[in-house]
Amino acid sequence: MDGNYALTEYLGAFIDEMVASGVKHAVISPGSRSTPLALLMAEHPTLKTWINIDERSAGFFALGIAKSTQSPVALLCTSGTAAANYFPAIVEATYSRVPLIVLTADRPHELREVGAPQAINQIDMYGSYSKWFVEMAIPENTPALLNYAKTVAARAVATSDSAPAGVVHLNFPLREPLVPNFNHVTWSKGDSVKKVITNKEEKISASVIELLQEVNQYEKGIIVCGPQDQEGFPKAVTELAEVLGYPILADPLSQLRSGKHAKENVVECYDAILKCSAAFEALKPDVVIRLGAMPVSKVLTQLISASEARYHLVVDENLGFRDPTLKATHFLHYDEVVFCKEAATHVIAKRKAKQYLQQWIKANEIARPILQSHVSDFHFEGDVVRRLTSTMKPHMCLFIGNSMPIRDVDSFYFLDEKNIRILANRGANGIDGIISTALGASIEGKRLVLLVGDITFYHDLNGLLASKLHNLPITIVVVNNNGGGIFSFLPQAKEEKHFELLFGTPMDLDFEKVVNMYGGRFKRVQSWSEYEDQLLESYEANQLTVIEVPTASRDENVKLHRNLWNEVTKELQNLF
Amino acid sequence: MDGNYALTEYLGAFIDEMVASGVKHAVISPGSRSTPLALLMAEHPTLKTWINIDERSAGFFALGIAKSTQSPVALLCTSGTAAANYFPAIVEATYSRVPLIVLTADRPHELREVGAPQAINQIDMYGSYSKWFVEMAIPENTPALLNYAKTVAARAVATSDSAPAGVVHLNFPLREPLVPNFNHVTWSKGDSVKKVITNKEEKISASVIELLQEVNQYEKGIIVCGPQDQEGFPKAVTELAEVLGYPILADPLSQLRSGKHAKENVVECYDAILKCSAAFEALKPDVVIRLGAMPVSKVLTQLISASEARYHLVVDENLGFRDPTLKATHFLHYDEVVFCKEAATHVIAKRKAKQYLQQWIKANEIARPILQSHVSDFHFEGDVVRRLTSTMKPHMCLFIGNSMPIRDVDSFYFLDEKNIRILANRGANGIDGIISTALGASIEGKRLVLLVGDITFYHDLNGLLASKLHNLPITIVVVNNNGGGIFSFLPQAKEEKHFELLFGTPMDLDFEKVVNMYGGRFKRVQSWSEYEDQLLESYEANQLTVIEVPTASRDENVKLHRNLWNEVTKELQNLF
Repeated sequence: MDGNYALTEYLGAFIDEMVASGVKHAVISPGSRSTPLALLMAEHPTLKTWINIDERSAGFFALGIAKSTQSPVALLCTSGTAAANYFPAIVEATYSRVPLIVLTADRPHELREVGAPQAINQIDMYGSYSKWFVEMAIPENTPALLNYAKTVAARAVATSDSAPAGVVHLNFPLREPLVPNFNHVTWSKGDSVKKVITNKEEKISASVIELLQEVNQYEKGIIVCGPQDQEGFPKAVTELAEVLGYPILADPLSQLRSGKHAKENVVECYDAILKCSAAFEALKPDVVIRLGAMPVSKVLTQLISASEARYHLVVDENLGFRDPTLKATHFLHYDEVVFCKEAATHVIAKRKAKQYLQQWIKANEIARPILQSHVSDFHFEGDVVRRLTSTMKPHMCLFIGNSMPIRDVDSFYFLDEKNIRILANRGANGIDGIISTALGASIEGKRLVLLVGDITFYHDLNGLLASKLHNLPITIVVVNNNGGGIFSFLPQAKEEKHFELLFGTPMDLDFEKVVNMYGGRFKRVQSWSEYEDQLLESYEANQLTVIEVPTASRDENVKLHRNLWNEVTKELQNLF
Repeated sequence: MDGNYALTEYLGAFIDEMVASGVKHAVISPGSRSTPLALLMAEHPTLKTWINIDERSAGFFALGIAKSTQSPVALLCTSGTAAANYFPAIVEATYSRVPLIVLTADRPHELREVGAPQAINQIDMYGSYSKWFVEMAIPENTPALLNYAKTVAARAVATSDSAPAGVVHLNFPLREPLVPNFNHVTWSKGDSVKKVITNKEEKISASVIELLQEVNQYEKGIIVCGPQDQEGFPKAVTELAEVLGYPILADPLSQLRSGKHAKENVVECYDAILKCSAAFEALKPDVVIRLGAMPVSKVLTQLISASEARYHLVVDENLGFRDPTLKATHFLHYDEVVFCKEAATHVIAKRKAKQYLQQWIKANEIARPILQSHVSDFHFEGDVVRRLTSTMKPHMCLFIGNSMPIRDVDSFYFLDEKNIRILANRGANGIDGIISTALGASIEGKRLVLLVGDITFYHDLNGLLASKLHNLPITIVVVNNNGGGIFSFLPQAKEEKHFELLFGTPMDLDFEKVVNMYGGRFKRVQSWSEYEDQLLESYEANQLTVIEVPTASRDENVKLHRNLWNEVTKELQNLF
């Protein structure tokens, strides 16, 4: 075989250094212009390649792998609209701070903007959504250019992974012939040539410790933990809460609801509690310490916003300003785990009073059994979550779709010891690409359950192909209320004219057919016991299992939710 | 009902003026932030609204409507990654010069870049792909702001539609409450307040006529017609060819292969002819006149490139530079129909010799019967086209997928009188969104046949929902060779290691299931007569019909194509 030598050595050097710098997975979509990169990636001895035909799904699949493995994943596609299909996943990666390295093949300069086929303007095409864009040099195999290729590779990995993690886009103009010669590539033994060492400060300053001591004089303080997936965080933040004597309001994505860490101060029923206006008024804090992204609960955000806290600290890794309430008094740019550990060690609590903390804990103890109580024999969407979590085994992973599922998990996932990792796409909160992201997150082998609504399931049906092609077993629970359930909770639900047309959007699809096409098992359950049996069975099955729960009408579902909340409010009247 | 007055009047004024300026269709994806725009669009007395749940499909569906109706179509989605899903269709619209008006709802300024849910940076998010981007003012109902809303609407329609047509992106920051009050909107009687009149020059200059007369002294001239869909073009260009005495090499998308116009000078078998190297050498022209986008045929592009023509004229509406050969000597920025009509009227041909023209016509007459000859009893992909076109009725529409189908149509669609309109997405030549685009192109009621390969069909399966929800009957022919057929024609096919993994990508999907899910009829045919029967039956059926043709293995298919081309080459040896 002949092949193109310069191309082979240049791209080989790039891929070799990228892998040596820490990239273990590459998600590839088929194409012509990208041929040499694809072939060399497949040829690399340690890089794991995943084919994914639909680039939109491919983008989210890579996102899922990067989210789960917490390290940068490479994406490769050919020139043209293929690259545009990555855009939704790139936006999500940016806002959820997940490292992706997007490699787009391109026509060479002389074939641009002159009507050549599949030649579009790919220069910085993701705009502000790429942390770093590089228009790569045309391949040459001079020592200078091989060194350049390696330098860019190492820097791309480091840049995508540095806080806040995000997307690097490298565009490769390639001339024909596009076929490499495998004899002309040598793979290193995995040692990177270009080492990037980032200085991670492992301390917080004395002034911050002083600030925390001042802050802690106030009794009415809350620690709000939003989406977070850093190792060691649950232990660190619960120890800090113990020192400060503050409750932790723990979003389901904070990883604080499930695990063996201390949970004395952890409150999970805040959403239902705060819907009681007396509780809302009584519980307004003087101090808010926020870690992680914004929590799901709208009423919790309203509490933070309405309380005009004396101190409102946002702890956010490098340069984050995540505070939609615009009420923060301090932005503390620290690694969250470092911050909690250091603060728990150095802050000396002087305050004795803990009445406010006790109010939260008491309210939580009142709300929880109500939220766990019997609602209806079947069809209540809250039960989909309650019964799912009761069947899940330790160390499984739960991936949650946006819109209603994440809200139901917020309401109905109660503290447990199981160490369930809970993930979602909460960067941009889209309903797109969820199946692909979940499948990507499943590759490490832990059994993953995905919980989605029917609209979200439809939006990424194509994503199911990855389960078939790569033998990725997964359990998908589809809450099917035949349409967009969340809109029934919003003001436009009162506007009956046009409502079903524009918002309800019933699709009347029998998903069994498409699930079967992708080689999956489909089960539409008719009772909770059947639901639980099917879940347990699916955990053992080595395949795609889709369990559809036909729930109550969307209107009825709103009522069932509101009934529970009203009951919590009623019971809390005595406390506040 | 209460509702937000300022919002209602401001957005009502915008929509009213947009419709009055010529927008007849709006494609809407469900969402919360976009609620007032969606409700007001649905309420408008003449605007036709189309719900499409997956924004990627929605974008291509709107593209199809705009392509077919040749007028601007509005797209509406909510904030977040929804907008990012439009990107592939926006790229295609830009390069295929189709007018789209993209309306994205957004969070208001105070909720941006602070971690608020579904708030992403939407400012100019399509970068160079929007001809005009406007960050709209927050709604107010002062006379000044209502006038502003109308002015932007009129300008958006005019800008998207002015040559080269393309995408306008308007971003609407909206504050809650998001529900309009229908009593506070008045719809005009369809008369626009802001009129935009574009001066379209209906003449060509004397110097261009002089140029053409000079050019026409050369006998060896070709007129190359690429993708083009302007009314009156076939008649105008064939009359010009008659005056000049040049053959027209007519791409299938030039609309020149089918219709009642004169076809004496029209050559359609150029791709097979030019694969004969003796013909290639003998037919190198001194003059090339190109109209429309670049043709599909690679060897035709090579001819143009290799011939180093003395005159190489590219006629392209405003500011187009579509010449990937980089050999153009003149760019003539004229409306193509005006150019042809004017030139045919004013140029006086002085040259008598037409031997070169006769060579083309003779070669075409030799090649055609070979390309029409019997190849195999079943399974030859060329026959999918030959037999499809023979069953099609006058005035139907044929939409062609990219990759192999467009090439097979180039090879096997022969001149006829049926006036079949032939469309494709040849702006960026993607395999994404094809089903949606075709369904969008079908709304005018002419029976449409879509011809795609299995990978392209898979890529936009979600698009099938539009057929079900909007009762759009369509015939889809899926050429199923279980993978990416075009790669077998490329050099990497020789590189057997990794080939099936990276390029062949067999999916082994039984599409019957998913077609049934969307309420369609599915038929996997086993013979050509069954194929033709099913086609004829589908034209009468008022529903989605998918006809799958399981073709030969991809390798075998390459052989069958090459056999035909070799036979043409053999027969042409006597002529050249």
